[in-house]
Amino acid sequence: MKISALLTSAGINIGLCVLFLSLYSVLRKQPANVRVYFGRRISEEHSRLREAFILERFVPSTGWIVKALRYTEEEVLAAAGLDAVAFNRMLVFSIRIFSLAALLCVFGILPLHYYGQNIQHLRIPYEDLDIFTIGNVEKRSRWLWVHCLVLYILSGVACILLYLEFRHIARLRLLHLKRATPNPGQFTVLVRGIPKTKKESCSSAVDDFFTKYHASSYLFHQIVYKTGKVQKIMTGAKKACRKLKNFTDTTVDQSCKAITYRCCLCGASSNSFQLLPTDEVVPSRGKVDLDDSSLNIDNEECAAAFVFFKTRYGALVASDVLQTSNPTKWVTDLAPEPNDVYWSNIWLPYKQLWIRRIATLLGSIVFMLLFLAPVTFINGLSQLDQLQKRLPFLNGILKQPHHLVQLITGYLPSVILQIFLYTVAPIMMLFSTLEGPISHSERKRSACCKVLYFLIWNVFFVNVVSGTVLKQLDFFSSPKDIPVQLAKVIPGQASFFITYVLTSGWASLSSELMQLFGLIYNFIRKYVLRMKEDTEFVPSFPYHTEVPKVLLFGLLGFTCSVLAPLILPFLLVYFFLGYVVYRNQLLNVYRTRYDTGGLYWPIIHNTVIFSLVLTQIICLGVFGLKVSPVAAGFTIPLIIFTLLFNQYCRTRLLPLFSTFPAQGGRAVRKNGTYSPRAPYRVLPVP
Amino acid sequence: MKISALLTSAGINIGLCVLFLSLYSVLRKQPANVRVYFGRRISEEHSRLREAFILERFVPSTGWIVKALRYTEEEVLAAAGLDAVAFNRMLVFSIRIFSLAALLCVFGILPLHYYGQNIQHLRIPYEDLDIFTIGNVEKRSRWLWVHCLVLYILSGVACILLYLEFRHIARLRLLHLKRATPNPGQFTVLVRGIPKTKKESCSSAVDDFFTKYHASSYLFHQIVYKTGKVQKIMTGAKKACRKLKNFTDTTVDQSCKAITYRCCLCGASSNSFQLLPTDEVVPSRGKVDLDDSSLNIDNEECAAAFVFFKTRYGALVASDVLQTSNPTKWVTDLAPEPNDVYWSNIWLPYKQLWIRRIATLLGSIVFMLLFLAPVTFINGLSQLDQLQKRLPFLNGILKQPHHLVQLITGYLPSVILQIFLYTVAPIMMLFSTLEGPISHSERKRSACCKVLYFLIWNVFFVNVVSGTVLKQLDFFSSPKDIPVQLAKVIPGQASFFITYVLTSGWASLSSELMQLFGLIYNFIRKYVLRMKEDTEFVPSFPYHTEVPKVLLFGLLGFTCSVLAPLILPFLLVYFFLGYVVYRNQLLNVYRTRYDTGGLYWPIIHNTVIFSLVLTQIICLGVFGLKVSPVAAGFTIPLIIFTLLFNQYCRTRLLPLFSTFPAQGGRAVRKNGTYSPRAPYRVLPVP
Repeated sequence: MKISALLTSAGINIGLCVLFLSLYSVLRKQPANVRVYFGRRISEEHSRLREAFILERFVPSTGWIVKALRYTEEEVLAAAGLDAVAFNRMLVFSIRIFSLAALLCVFGILPLHYYGQNIQHLRIPYEDLDIFTIGNVEKRSRWLWVHCLVLYILSGVACILLYLEFRHIARLRLLHLKRATPNPGQFTVLVRGIPKTKKESCSSAVDDFFTKYHASSYLFHQIVYKTGKVQKIMTGAKKACRKLKNFTDTTVDQSCKAITYRCCLCGASSNSFQLLPTDEVVPSRGKVDLDDSSLNIDNEECAAAFVFFKTRYGALVASDVLQTSNPTKWVTDLAPEPNDVYWSNIWLPYKQLWIRRIATLLGSIVFMLLFLAPVTFINGLSQLDQLQKRLPFLNGILKQPHHLVQLITGYLPSVILQIFLYTVAPIMMLFSTLEGPISHSERKRSACCKVLYFLIWNVFFVNVVSGTVLKQLDFFSSPKDIPVQLAKVIPGQASFFITYVLTSGWASLSSELMQLFGLIYNFIRKYVLRMKEDTEFVPSFPYHTEVPKVLLFGLLGFTCSVLAPLILPFLLVYFFLGYVVYRNQLLNVYRTRYDTGGLYWPIIHNTVIFSLVLTQIICLGVFGLKVSPVAAGFTIPLIIFTLLFNQYCRTRLLPLFSTFPAQGGRAVRKNGTYSPRAPYRVLPVP
Repeated sequence: MKISALLTSAGINIGLCVLFLSLYSVLRKQPANVRVYFGRRISEEHSRLREAFILERFVPSTGWIVKALRYTEEEVLAAAGLDAVAFNRMLVFSIRIFSLAALLCVFGILPLHYYGQNIQHLRIPYEDLDIFTIGNVEKRSRWLWVHCLVLYILSGVACILLYLEFRHIARLRLLHLKRATPNPGQFTVLVRGIPKTKKESCSSAVDDFFTKYHASSYLFHQIVYKTGKVQKIMTGAKKACRKLKNFTDTTVDQSCKAITYRCCLCGASSNSFQLLPTDEVVPSRGKVDLDDSSLNIDNEECAAAFVFFKTRYGALVASDVLQTSNPTKWVTDLAPEPNDVYWSNIWLPYKQLWIRRIATLLGSIVFMLLFLAPVTFINGLSQLDQLQKRLPFLNGILKQPHHLVQLITGYLPSVILQIFLYTVAPIMMLFSTLEGPISHSERKRSACCKVLYFLIWNVFFVNVVSGTVLKQLDFFSSPKDIPVQLAKVIPGQASFFITYVLTSGWASLSSELMQLFGLIYNFIRKYVLRMKEDTEFVPSFPYHTEVPKVLLFGLLGFTCSVLAPLILPFLLVYFFLGYVVYRNQLLNVYRTRYDTGGLYWPIIHNTVIFSLVLTQIICLGVFGLKVSPVAAGFTIPLIIFTLLFNQYCRTRLLPLFSTFPAQGGRAVRKNGTYSPRAPYRVLPVP
């Protein structure tokens, strides 16, 4: 690809970005769209934001950028939770490390590449992009030590920054756990796999078990009953029958409201549930109610129970310890927060979960492999000569004016890839749901991992591999040669990655800002269907698509930094823009209903370490290809040090993300003692 | 290799075995050797066994075999602990599955192989061994479904047996944990990484911490102080000085006795320790003693502490829960039993352990790779034509009579390999020591894993690979072709594996029975050095060498069963003999000082599953080579089912081997409550 094609692509994208940003700054001032762009604020701060936006409504402005930047971390934490802060820190980390990388590589390495071989240089717009990659450096060049040095500096600084961020998030997580208003989830244990007995009811079995083994801190419990569809109709009929007899009984129907709108795909069966609080909890419910619940117990299968403890420590101990000699019975986990519970999965038999996990794992792998087809096709587009050879009938189409070909090679491939990629997140979310997580946040985190693996495999590796030779699928059959193979290919693929940053990065950021879907939905609802405003509908932030996206750009940045530094300025613009846009969205648009407590950070940390090591391995291959034994020799200890650093972080900080320290749970014992109310009786209000 | 060469080898080994067994049955009756052959009984049952053996002392007899077989599992459990039972069950499992395999394969598959091709058969002694392998079956043979069927039966029966054994061991483990005499280790937590403070002593820091966070079950604690060599001399001098002043003070010197004899290599620094019991524990020790300990606290660094709890449950909770927000501080683990504590490692700073683990891992890998040289050399010997081509100067030696060549090819290689292998166990034990385990049993288990990986890699894989082409090290660079490659090679290597069973299996069993080393040591001690009898010296069973050995033979058996069934009768004899010999040794010779509580079983389970899957993969390759798509197609679901079965076992039974269930700890609360004595004050008496 020529510089001019790149510039065409960049131009289109900059134009789109500016257009979208201006549109946004106008649209956000329209009162009709206030629900789209200020969903969180309206749902949380109510009625404060309705006036003011009347003047200068149709003039683009930049005030929102300033506003988004002005918020402090404490405000973000308070408004959007710890996950938002972790996301934010990831962007800050990326900005910091890639600013340094851009500085070092553009001024230190780019000239080395450009003047790497004694060739006649054209005017820069007509230069091939390969001129700016390491491919243009001669073998046995004396200047390869510069690459090695830059690699050392980048890896070192990245590790230090990463450690500081990890520590920071860990500290915030501890504060989050200890905060003054106790979170009911920390006092509650979800018990699954309660063994069935003939002689006593499920509720008394739970009561017996926990009074026997956790007497000192056990408080009370709530049973979740599983009602099938038929069962539900039967129970409903019985209830209706009794209601006719005694129609003062209004508190009986406590079946959870369906929460299908939160995720479009998989909340379907969530309304087949009923929470039947035990008598101790609601002693005011009286006789009729008691009859009703005992009637239900006869008919329905006990699925799980929420068990409440007096102290966080008590709940922590009960969830940590293996309860009985059968590990699939009396399985205890810390309960998710009330808003976070994924009701449809709670009744899944615990014994089934391991096989579900394996099945979804296999499903995801098959999906990832099937996706090779579109990716290979797309890559063919960016390498026209390859495609022409394979599919000769395309020759006619491709003998078009120069600009059209430039458009095809520079822009079309990543747009098509982008469209295909939109199907990935819902499918991965579906897989994660089938896996059987008990909370929304766990489901989202699992989907995040799946999307991340998917992107790294399909966007990075497959593009790299199919980039050189179409269908060279035996690439991965010889692991020994992978570094050398990658080293050969990456510089050549830099042009594709740059256009990917432009289209997928910049453009998707502006469309995220625009909330095109929300805008259209709002418009149709309001003016076509003429429905009332839905104040409840505020989406939560799609971490499972956005975290992998940003991490993928980080991976591209690291791997290309030393080899093809031209990508870095574009990437840096992406990260800056992302920082502003995501802050704005987190603070204004999305509402935080549940929080993992920073559990996205280990994923981020691991991916950055993976990117660093991959970069180092690729550089090792490049130094090998360029016959520079000194540089290659110096790269090996760097890989070892990076891995050791990772191991240190895992030992030192990771355990905090898998459990809670007892000290915290005990130290806040006084204000952390739990007052007996039943938070899970509250229906999961959207 | 011809059948006659195999018979030569078998003959030599049978002769050796008979000789050793007869020698053993004579030697065991000599009163001089009673300490060698009845160490455990003498040390435990005292003076009961000294008479009786006077008549018929020099006639070989078989009474010991009957005796060894007569013991029930309960008696083995009582005499030698749960590990011995797990070891025993492994042999029983092997006997069962390989009896079935021998029946099916020798009568079902062997004739198919022998008449697989229409060739003129020689007289059987002059037949090549390859005639009996699957290599002799024609491509597209109609009879390959028999192989597939046998594979299915073997895998299915192996899985069922394995599950039953796993469940049995798990049940025994639970009983072991709940048994009537409480094991102090279950009431005790070992705390490492105690943070240093200026203002309070280590002992009061521990006391404060546990009274604050585990008040309900905390009992008392003991500090382990670390004394360097110089420090030790200093303290010794001070003590001597004070002893002169106040020579009634005799309880002060409580430094642990060295326990170097238990493992020959690495108990060197274990005598640089002192246990200083706190005042509460020994309130009778009075004033002088207190002065002494406070003096020590000033000078010495606090390394770790044993903390005692009232209930098992209390200790379990304290060991399971993450204590503070820094995972490298206040690290708690359930303490090993008093006899099991590996004192030299307790003072190792906890922060150092992760790097030690990585270093030893790398060390073991390097050692495994370095070992390629002798293995390759040995394999050359068994393939003389290969060797003659490479090293032409050997031609002279090899033009010897036929019998000598048969001896070289049939017997020498595995003897040399055997000698090299003797160095492996001590080196792996050294690596395991450096890793920093806190108990002898953990160290032995870690060494067991290392030796196992080593054997599987160096005896199985490297032999298989270097068997075909010397130095074909790029074999593993193409993972896709491994099944096919293995399928090509395994049948050809069957003859080597058979001789390996004969030499390494049979002969090593009889030398184990003979206790050659112990016999010579005893003789020299008694008649040359004229020392007094050492009643204390009774070795413990070398699980770290014997478990991997038996598992390796299992692997050979599974992989060869369908492809080269001639190995099975030899293997079956090995397992029968092993069953008798090991039972005899466990009951008479070795003494059980510490027990992992059946933790060897997960290693055994995993290895058997690995062997099964490997066998199935190899068969897949073979069916592919023989162009039998039906058989190959049926093998793939078998692999999937085996892996699913493994996953089920991991979910259902494995958690019991990593922690104790709380129910057990609570259920025995009444007789499980811990009476305040200090078991770790008892010096680790050998």
